[in-house]
Amino acid sequence: MEKSYRPNLHLALMHYPVMNKNGDVIASAVTNLDLHDISRAAKTYGVRSFYVVTPLADQKSLIEKIVSHWVSGAGAKYNPIRREALELIRIKDSLAKVTDHIRSQGEGTPKTVVTCARDYDRSISYSSFQDMLKNRSSYLLIFGTAWGLSENFISKADYILEPIKGNTDYNHLSVRSAASIILDRLLKLDVRC
Amino acid sequence: MEKSYRPNLHLALMHYPVMNKNGDVIASAVTNLDLHDISRAAKTYGVRSFYVVTPLADQKSLIEKIVSHWVSGAGAKYNPIRREALELIRIKDSLAKVTDHIRSQGEGTPKTVVTCARDYDRSISYSSFQDMLKNRSSYLLIFGTAWGLSENFISKADYILEPIKGNTDYNHLSVRSAASIILDRLLKLDVRC
Repeated sequence: MEKSYRPNLHLALMHYPVMNKNGDVIASAVTNLDLHDISRAAKTYGVRSFYVVTPLADQKSLIEKIVSHWVSGAGAKYNPIRREALELIRIKDSLAKVTDHIRSQGEGTPKTVVTCARDYDRSISYSSFQDMLKNRSSYLLIFGTAWGLSENFISKADYILEPIKGNTDYNHLSVRSAASIILDRLLKLDVRC
Repeated sequence: MEKSYRPNLHLALMHYPVMNKNGDVIASAVTNLDLHDISRAAKTYGVRSFYVVTPLADQKSLIEKIVSHWVSGAGAKYNPIRREALELIRIKDSLAKVTDHIRSQGEGTPKTVVTCARDYDRSISYSSFQDMLKNRSSYLLIFGTAWGLSENFISKADYILEPIKGNTDYNHLSVRSAASIILDRLLKLDVRC
């Protein structure tokens, strides 16, 4: 079974600009297991990098502390397999810094694809996005924390991915679950490009 | 779009008998976000109940405290949507107590289907399990915590589900990610029974 296919896909987890329960735009706090679960899923599906985005200095330093524990500290020795996943994490201030970084690696400007629990007129399907990945352009798949990405942020994205539908009307998955399911839908072996 | 299909499927998350890093059989500690993420995914995909299994009294009381906060305490008022998910949780001592409970609800004895990151000769595919769910028998899909379910426990299950393959050789997803992906593979709308 050939497993060398690696899409030109990057992930970003935004802690700003996201919404709180009342719809106000806020900067959210980092959740430790977001870093672990999403980097492990990213590694499983051959994603190139996982950007964790926050403008807050104390949050950036917390993320650095967690990541360095697992990448170069005691955790790296205790669990080298976990290190392989957390090595994908890059900490950035903003979306602009993320796209700059991807561009600086010679991959061109990535197209941005936001995820959201709501349907939009311009939402694209999983199969459309699979087709887009085949053209080997660079894509940045973006997840929000808290109550989701701000409407203004979503409106500026190149694409909006359709929401995950289970088989009920309940659509309140954690971002960890949503990221895992979306990577599986796009990239599992039987939907190879 | 008809969304009323509900498989006769229950989940169990085992904290005993599972393995530690060295392969010893242990009882693991409960992780708060396992309760949230897996109950939210279960609710999304129409799973009937989510059993959290541990023989340890202090762990059972911790789970009760977390669940009651969200189901009947301050959390239920703050976030009623979260309540709908955590209401699926039932706390039990052992697998035998889980199957007794399912039987006591008039659903017969469920067939047990264990999940595991390794392949076995007798592993069944996702599509086989989808076909089995169509016959409306009762099934209990079982996940392990820590380094996975004990070999002895796995050997006694009625079925073993094939591992999740991404598109790399890395297969170290969190149990939260694995449960989400497996429910999506089995039950998302386009694989309706």
